[in-house]
Amino acid sequence: MPPRQLKLAAFFNPPGSHVAGWRMPDAVPTDLEFDEYLDVVREAERGLFDMVFFQDSAAVPPAITLAGKDTEAAAGAARTVRIEPMTLLAALAVTTTHIGLVATGTTSYNEPYHIARRFASIDHLSKGRAGWNLVTSQNEDEAQNFGRDAHLDHALRYERAAEFHDVVVGLWEGWDHDAFIRDKASGRYFDPSKLRILNHVGKHFRVRGPLNVARSPQGRPIIAQAGSSEPGKELAARTADVTFTAQTSLAEAQAFRADVRERAMRYGRSPDDIKIMPGLNYVLAETESDARALYEHLLSMMTDEVVMPSIMRLSGGLDLRQFPLDGPLPELPQSNAAHARQKMLVELARRENLSIRQLARRYATSNGHNVFVGTPKGLADMMEAWFQAGAADGFVMLSPYYPTPMRNFVRWVVPELQRRGIYRTAYEGRTLRENLGLVSPAPPLR
Amino acid sequence: MPPRQLKLAAFFNPPGSHVAGWRMPDAVPTDLEFDEYLDVVREAERGLFDMVFFQDSAAVPPAITLAGKDTEAAAGAARTVRIEPMTLLAALAVTTTHIGLVATGTTSYNEPYHIARRFASIDHLSKGRAGWNLVTSQNEDEAQNFGRDAHLDHALRYERAAEFHDVVVGLWEGWDHDAFIRDKASGRYFDPSKLRILNHVGKHFRVRGPLNVARSPQGRPIIAQAGSSEPGKELAARTADVTFTAQTSLAEAQAFRADVRERAMRYGRSPDDIKIMPGLNYVLAETESDARALYEHLLSMMTDEVVMPSIMRLSGGLDLRQFPLDGPLPELPQSNAAHARQKMLVELARRENLSIRQLARRYATSNGHNVFVGTPKGLADMMEAWFQAGAADGFVMLSPYYPTPMRNFVRWVVPELQRRGIYRTAYEGRTLRENLGLVSPAPPLR
Repeated sequence: MPPRQLKLAAFFNPPGSHVAGWRMPDAVPTDLEFDEYLDVVREAERGLFDMVFFQDSAAVPPAITLAGKDTEAAAGAARTVRIEPMTLLAALAVTTTHIGLVATGTTSYNEPYHIARRFASIDHLSKGRAGWNLVTSQNEDEAQNFGRDAHLDHALRYERAAEFHDVVVGLWEGWDHDAFIRDKASGRYFDPSKLRILNHVGKHFRVRGPLNVARSPQGRPIIAQAGSSEPGKELAARTADVTFTAQTSLAEAQAFRADVRERAMRYGRSPDDIKIMPGLNYVLAETESDARALYEHLLSMMTDEVVMPSIMRLSGGLDLRQFPLDGPLPELPQSNAAHARQKMLVELARRENLSIRQLARRYATSNGHNVFVGTPKGLADMMEAWFQAGAADGFVMLSPYYPTPMRNFVRWVVPELQRRGIYRTAYEGRTLRENLGLVSPAPPLR
Repeated sequence: MPPRQLKLAAFFNPPGSHVAGWRMPDAVPTDLEFDEYLDVVREAERGLFDMVFFQDSAAVPPAITLAGKDTEAAAGAARTVRIEPMTLLAALAVTTTHIGLVATGTTSYNEPYHIARRFASIDHLSKGRAGWNLVTSQNEDEAQNFGRDAHLDHALRYERAAEFHDVVVGLWEGWDHDAFIRDKASGRYFDPSKLRILNHVGKHFRVRGPLNVARSPQGRPIIAQAGSSEPGKELAARTADVTFTAQTSLAEAQAFRADVRERAMRYGRSPDDIKIMPGLNYVLAETESDARALYEHLLSMMTDEVVMPSIMRLSGGLDLRQFPLDGPLPELPQSNAAHARQKMLVELARRENLSIRQLARRYATSNGHNVFVGTPKGLADMMEAWFQAGAADGFVMLSPYYPTPMRNFVRWVVPELQRRGIYRTAYEGRTLRENLGLVSPAPPLR
């Protein structure tokens, strides 16, 4: 048996994971031009990444709301427009060949029939490379685009998400893989004995089915999740193929992975059926000092107007701008957004004794994820160490901007990982499920 | 000024507009294979069609529900699976160059923010070729996939549709075309003075906005509609760029077009800003007798199990299978589905004294639209006559199956129309709006 292989995802939050990255001279502020997306995705495919992963929110970022009457304060908010991710995946499905295509679809403001249909359709278009990142909405601005003032309560949101998941999977599994015979002689288009009508009746949803898309090439699309709260981890342990997580130390990441694997076993699953992938921001250069200088330059381009909104969504409704920005973080009311993220933010401020401004700058740089600044060899060392110590099955790479950092990663770090025998030199299979080394829940369609 | 030009749309209801067309020896039962769709769409693009138009329903066809315990009765239902149309448009956007891309999106089971976002995204992907066919849901099977037993009442459905439209357009127009400056030196990503936040509060929707997609290349995507009831015509007159309609005689089509144009003027619009396009099924061959034989062959492949569901959705809940199929159509209760379609069905049965079986076979052949059977020259004559008599601005061509009939239309009929000077010999513009000859509501994006 070949040694265990590291998995890689390329994270997209256009035009970059660092709030000021788009201002770099070599940055392309990718947000609405398809060719710019395609260029970076094909680079990731050349680097044999398992998947690209498009973050999403059905709203503009909070900076615009927070600006209020001082509209100029919003002008630096770069992550304001993008191609809707499920739409984008469909376009990438027919212009790429191997790489997995994963996008966020919130369970808070969608209907399970629509989500099941779209990802099944993307799985057909891509011949088995689709993945759905199942989330509950965290950005309160989304609520106001869907007739509500605020999100459902955290616990209820997860209850809805769990039922939403079950409906979607039930719809995906309604048709056997060989149901569609299209027999011209007899006039039988499908075999009705290979159909199971869902008839789901639950607390949040009532959905009859069946889905008007046949069983998809992967059996069903991959499910990714990113929740790290107690209900988030439970849902992932029961249902996720991939977990994206924010972990800033090796010890915490080991504990998190062990915890999720143990929970998965309690649901009767093999712990290897859930791939745990921490996020990892990277700022690379050929020497340590060049990397450090690049990082400092990125920091220097951030302004308070741009960094403050990144932590305000976790402040539980408290307007942090009314406190001295060079003073300590005040006590925060419980947030109805991401519980685990709020806890991490408060602990970071306490542990490193950061002022509000320092905390905001740190958070805006990292999205709460680990940040690596250094050489390609240093990055490969760190990734290998985490991987071998059981802290990760792979990583979600967050590029500060596009496309240079991704090109450098593929040129510099990928060969380094391959030399160490922990990363593929060619795609193993045709589907995302095969490349992740997961057991397919059903044979391929045709 | 060049003479007025005929507009053409290619209608897709995979695997064909004739319920038994997929059984033809040369038929490809296109439903989930992207390359098969692309092949036919590129054929339409070679034929300089203005647009392809994908019909949709978020449910399997009624045949499956109606089959009940006799599941084998559903086996011939060919239009059971397909690629979700908005997803498909995104894939076609990056693999075609000129042709307009239109898909149905129901206002009954969607949220305006999602619809605005998806079509704006498709407009960006296609560089200005997207169109949204705004409908209210008619197939009661859809309701049961979205937590309801039946649709909203007809009037309320249209009220919701009208408000839905206004929200979508409001979201599309939230950003000026030059709002995104992405200025690296100053750090200003956009100019906040070019943003208008929607803050819509209505009876059916509350949506703050703005949309997280910039102003789209067409200013805004094209809006198509197909309603022919009283509220349907009013909504189209106020809001549609294109109306798809079922008209079976030249005189009725003239009256319909005059009516909609007059209503448009009452809303302060130019009547030329709404293109009226009747549907037209075509069965072509090089001789009359070959065309007639092909048509008879298509009819011979239809079974009662396959044809009855096509009229049952218009029977107002009455199970027509309990009546003698060779007897007359009984009195029908008012349908909550398509009012205008039910009226047309009843009038057709009375006028031609059709039995239930004959009516079902006629309807399953035509989808309620006109059917032309004959030679390419005969078809061009008919299209020219309707066009010149003010009965149509163009036609929606319904192919009985794919791909042969579309190839024959492009090879045989298109040159015939061009010779008569009523059809383009090259695309006039880059966007669908330009090709339709509509005035753009805003300059292109960049």
